[in-house]
Amino acid sequence: MKACVIHAAHDLRVEEREPAGLGPGEIRVRLGAGGICGSDLHYYHEGGIGDFPVREPMVLGHEMAGTVAELGPGVEGPAVGTRVAVDPTWPCGACRWCRDGSYHLCPEVRFAGSSRTFPHTQGFFQELVTAKAAQCKPLPEGFPLELAAMAEPLAVCLHAVQRAGNMVGQRVLVTGAGPIGCLTVVAARLAGAAEITATDLLPEALAVARRMGADRTIDLAADRTPLDALQEGGGKVDIVFECSGSPKALVDGLKAVRRGGTMVQVGVLPRGGHALPVDLLVGKELDLKGTLRFTREFDWAVSCIVGGRVDLRPLLTDQLPLARARDAFDLASDRKRAMKVQLVLS
Amino acid sequence: MKACVIHAAHDLRVEEREPAGLGPGEIRVRLGAGGICGSDLHYYHEGGIGDFPVREPMVLGHEMAGTVAELGPGVEGPAVGTRVAVDPTWPCGACRWCRDGSYHLCPEVRFAGSSRTFPHTQGFFQELVTAKAAQCKPLPEGFPLELAAMAEPLAVCLHAVQRAGNMVGQRVLVTGAGPIGCLTVVAARLAGAAEITATDLLPEALAVARRMGADRTIDLAADRTPLDALQEGGGKVDIVFECSGSPKALVDGLKAVRRGGTMVQVGVLPRGGHALPVDLLVGKELDLKGTLRFTREFDWAVSCIVGGRVDLRPLLTDQLPLARARDAFDLASDRKRAMKVQLVLS
Amino acid sequence: MKACVIHAAHDLRVEEREPAGLGPGEIRVRLGAGGICGSDLHYYHEGGIGDFPVREPMVLGHEMAGTVAELGPGVEGPAVGTRVAVDPTWPCGACRWCRDGSYHLCPEVRFAGSSRTFPHTQGFFQELVTAKAAQCKPLPEGFPLELAAMAEPLAVCLHAVQRAGNMVGQRVLVTGAGPIGCLTVVAARLAGAAEITATDLLPEALAVARRMGADRTIDLAADRTPLDALQEGGGKVDIVFECSGSPKALVDGLKAVRRGGTMVQVGVLPRGGHALPVDLLVGKELDLKGTLRFTREFDWAVSCIVGGRVDLRPLLTDQLPLARARDAFDLASDRKRAMKVQLVLS
Amino acid sequence: MKACVIHAAHDLRVEEREPAGLGPGEIRVRLGAGGICGSDLHYYHEGGIGDFPVREPMVLGHEMAGTVAELGPGVEGPAVGTRVAVDPTWPCGACRWCRDGSYHLCPEVRFAGSSRTFPHTQGFFQELVTAKAAQCKPLPEGFPLELAAMAEPLAVCLHAVQRAGNMVGQRVLVTGAGPIGCLTVVAARLAGAAEITATDLLPEALAVARRMGADRTIDLAADRTPLDALQEGGGKVDIVFECSGSPKALVDGLKAVRRGGTMVQVGVLPRGGHALPVDLLVGKELDLKGTLRFTREFDWAVSCIVGGRVDLRPLLTDQLPLARARDAFDLASDRKRAMKVQLVLS
Repeated sequence: MKACVIHAAHDLRVEEREPAGLGPGEIRVRLGAGGICGSDLHYYHEGGIGDFPVREPMVLGHEMAGTVAELGPGVEGPAVGTRVAVDPTWPCGACRWCRDGSYHLCPEVRFAGSSRTFPHTQGFFQELVTAKAAQCKPLPEGFPLELAAMAEPLAVCLHAVQRAGNMVGQRVLVTGAGPIGCLTVVAARLAGAAEITATDLLPEALAVARRMGADRTIDLAADRTPLDALQEGGGKVDIVFECSGSPKALVDGLKAVRRGGTMVQVGVLPRGGHALPVDLLVGKELDLKGTLRFTREFDWAVSCIVGGRVDLRPLLTDQLPLARARDAFDLASDRKRAMKVQLVLS
Repeated sequence: MKACVIHAAHDLRVEEREPAGLGPGEIRVRLGAGGICGSDLHYYHEGGIGDFPVREPMVLGHEMAGTVAELGPGVEGPAVGTRVAVDPTWPCGACRWCRDGSYHLCPEVRFAGSSRTFPHTQGFFQELVTAKAAQCKPLPEGFPLELAAMAEPLAVCLHAVQRAGNMVGQRVLVTGAGPIGCLTVVAARLAGAAEITATDLLPEALAVARRMGADRTIDLAADRTPLDALQEGGGKVDIVFECSGSPKALVDGLKAVRRGGTMVQVGVLPRGGHALPVDLLVGKELDLKGTLRFTREFDWAVSCIVGGRVDLRPLLTDQLPLARARDAFDLASDRKRAMKVQLVLS
Repeated sequence: MKACVIHAAHDLRVEEREPAGLGPGEIRVRLGAGGICGSDLHYYHEGGIGDFPVREPMVLGHEMAGTVAELGPGVEGPAVGTRVAVDPTWPCGACRWCRDGSYHLCPEVRFAGSSRTFPHTQGFFQELVTAKAAQCKPLPEGFPLELAAMAEPLAVCLHAVQRAGNMVGQRVLVTGAGPIGCLTVVAARLAGAAEITATDLLPEALAVARRMGADRTIDLAADRTPLDALQEGGGKVDIVFECSGSPKALVDGLKAVRRGGTMVQVGVLPRGGHALPVDLLVGKELDLKGTLRFTREFDWAVSCIVGGRVDLRPLLTDQLPLARARDAFDLASDRKRAMKVQLVLS
Repeated sequence: MKACVIHAAHDLRVEEREPAGLGPGEIRVRLGAGGICGSDLHYYHEGGIGDFPVREPMVLGHEMAGTVAELGPGVEGPAVGTRVAVDPTWPCGACRWCRDGSYHLCPEVRFAGSSRTFPHTQGFFQELVTAKAAQCKPLPEGFPLELAAMAEPLAVCLHAVQRAGNMVGQRVLVTGAGPIGCLTVVAARLAGAAEITATDLLPEALAVARRMGADRTIDLAADRTPLDALQEGGGKVDIVFECSGSPKALVDGLKAVRRGGTMVQVGVLPRGGHALPVDLLVGKELDLKGTLRFTREFDWAVSCIVGGRVDLRPLLTDQLPLARARDAFDLASDRKRAMKVQLVLS
């Protein structure tokens, strides 16, 4: 079978592999659609992510939906032929975080297509993926796999929204309108936010954010700060989601949030020190929270998508065959041309 | 009557003043003991605090207990002669923060001895203080006023602990063992913390922290980071309270807290950008929270002190007459010689 | 001017009154639409509510939107002619509940058209209502007053949903599909509930519940318990909102909620003891919460209605002139014929 | 080896048994002290608990500390000879409750000495107990096992306190001063409660409650309600813990709690309907919460006991040899003569 494997920075290959073994409690799933995420792009351009370079060839990908192809020993379902969305998380199940229900923080967690553990956890961009039955969430018959494949990034954003607390009646700012920013708009809207403003440097991204539910957008290329723009229409916000990973956006967000408000850092920031106006934390008594992956929000995301409570189609700009993975990664790297790019079997 | 008035940096005078008027609902309280706080020292050394220079002569002081001297029109109690601790907060009562129960964040709040509003709110370091009856919390007959005067800084620390959530079973790090650090040790202990470690550069401060309930202290002058020291005994902590106001301590704290843990910034940080490893916020999914003053924790502080649930005596190192306010401020500025310094009527 | 006044059980009169005086900080609002609530019907049929009989003639009504007619001394806005929704709550502003942000629990709170305090607080079913400026929430020009008048009952339901916590991903049961049940469906949907089931004895009510967002309805007249019906489709629920005020529904709800789930009692229960399976509270570790009125949810309700995030039209079945108040109350008392009935100026 | 086995109501035998097998990851622990709990007494007197009669002979007991006697395959520690407190919980690890960190609510959970699952989970009142290594919490060398054996009931009470939320500054009522009531006093005190009142019908129990930290006690045999007594000293309370399992105490508690307060039902109530004034739930907007067992509070309890933060000695009235189990059960059944009774090896 074909797999999309990262060997080093800029060395992404589509190559033949044997499918992984199929142990007790496991299921083999045939790839339906696999979305390229920002972290996949880090591997593509930098050969690793943060402190974790690729140390052995690794299949990329952790956003995936497909069709059950084979059941391992002792697995009762879902039946062969069922469509499923696959949760990319294998927690250890024994540490204090797993016992506390925070298994996304498990120090030993394995996550599809991640070099944080060694041997690396092979990812989902391959024809046949092996996962535990409990990771495979059944979908209704014939449900579009390209929508179900977005359950993973939506789960990330639902978790970010959970971190922020109540959305009903809240005025929300989302900085950065890439796929994660746009899905945070969707998640905040779903949870009842009263007014959502999104910012970006690219008008194309802001147009998608509006289609996905933003009430208002601010084009930062037009030389304004978010706070300036907000003050023309309602003033500081209750909650900021920083989705761009830009330290400058974090600074702007700390200024744009009201006294007693909350800021959630969703985007992955560059390592090292960044100059922050931390006096605002105390002066306005803010909550500044990081957010990482998700736990039960994966199930919630599947349920929202399947129930038609969210419309993710505006985000999905491109689908390319697995064999053209490099083209797909190049396309996904160009924010002006693409939002979410997915790999499919031709 | 005598009052301790700041005119400019280093220009602190004890001068004669007329007592403030006594309106409906107000009470006049004779000073029993008034504690000098770190923010009072900012006025003394810098002529202001943060962005708020002194623009007119202002009586300093916001930590006070005394004896009811006179009741204004319509006030039924507490009776003349009753000992009271005085809450230094006058909220506006009408804004969204006041309506939400977060009146400490009220943009119009007046706070004793603060130049944030103009005309400035005159403070408590004067023979006769006027406050609303609701601000005056009655004490048992004969209760030591020097202990009750510490209700205000204890309330600050109880509020910080509330911001952090549950203490029971938690391992806690307190960075900075000045009066606020030591009272945070007390507050975390009161709320059930399992193990409390305090850090400082001064052995004298650490000795007081131990007397006030710290299980363990780390002398940072001995060239270790808190994380190094922690790793010799139990590893990362669940919760950090940063009480020194040092950006370096904030950085060290972010490193010392466990995945999914909480850090509360209690100390007032210098304005402007400070280089922080913000990638840890996301990578460990941390909560970083500011904390500012208090609301109902003032009542709780009075009740804890009066009920004997906390012992604050180790903190109180010095009492000087109001007339010697300058000496008292100099003494309070010398961390090697003093912890909490109070002004009293001779 | 005309006013709709309750004198005793079944003695509801439309009579001439002088408008109330207009003090400093107050506004006079001309009635646009005033909704009849279940508690108004209690006054109509029983001459009081619970322990609080009417002791003097009282104008009924607390759900109202109208047009600013006159500004009292010192009021800067909203300008005469502005449409407003009016919050029926006058808290004392000084008690512990008011200070804690829970002013709906203030023991001295005055609430429009309520006999709980004496002299009674006159209500909103009169041509000209006097309220504090802060109670009057401005609406966009020309905004339909009949929708804005439903902000009050929607606020009740948003508060009930706040009491229950996170809705995203949750399976919800609403027992009782009268106006409050239907608005709880709306509120839970707004806050992101995954699946909402509503129950009632009347197919007419269930039809409205479906139009307002219920995914599924259970006709209890068809001799099934909610639990039976649920077990045909997904099993026990995460959260129950009991909106019928029937002790039997409370019992059924305690059985229908999952281990660790939450039940919120929204409907007003008859006084006195009701036989409850309280062993389930412990055995399933449930949260059973009462909910009463609202605080800041009034503003949220206005913002949701004005922003078009909720569609309340299916609930509004009838509008009658104030002069025909008795007909309107009779109609509102007949659940088969009407849901929300409003009084308007002819 | 000897084991204390329940066969049917009143048929409790000390008989010879083979120790259970020792599988991978398991440890064999020699009984040091095993406390008799109220649920053990239900088995003794009624031959079962609630809906779960004993269907096969079952060793009783779930409160235990002892000494590591043997390590199963693959177990690295704690070493043979180490003293340990043993958590009686074996969760399934796979269901939604286990994944959410609420594994005490796991429908498949096995709990030592419980007939809720079949085959029954054999309990701890035997010379050699087998448990997973992760259930065995190491104690300092020579630490008194009779104190460590109380970690389990203390964990129950710490969990109850967690359910109630913040204790600092709160006025607390504990109804029922048996072992669980007294340990709830300890837990609320540890978490910072401002004032704790305990009630009971027996002066002996109230005396222990005072020794364990209650500020005040109310003897209900003296024909007063808790509310009457409270109104003589401070009025209604913020939080009630109902620890007697008496429906009457639940009713009294609902009356004694303030508007917006919280009541936690800790005691196991008789099955079936009990007449409750549920209108108070809505009228005062109360939280009424059940509480069941514990999760991570077991570790917290061990840490509190080992750290000397709580003094449990006043509760421990009797220790009898395992061979005299029937005498011990009779003694524990007599509230006038005993509080906590433990079984030890002679």
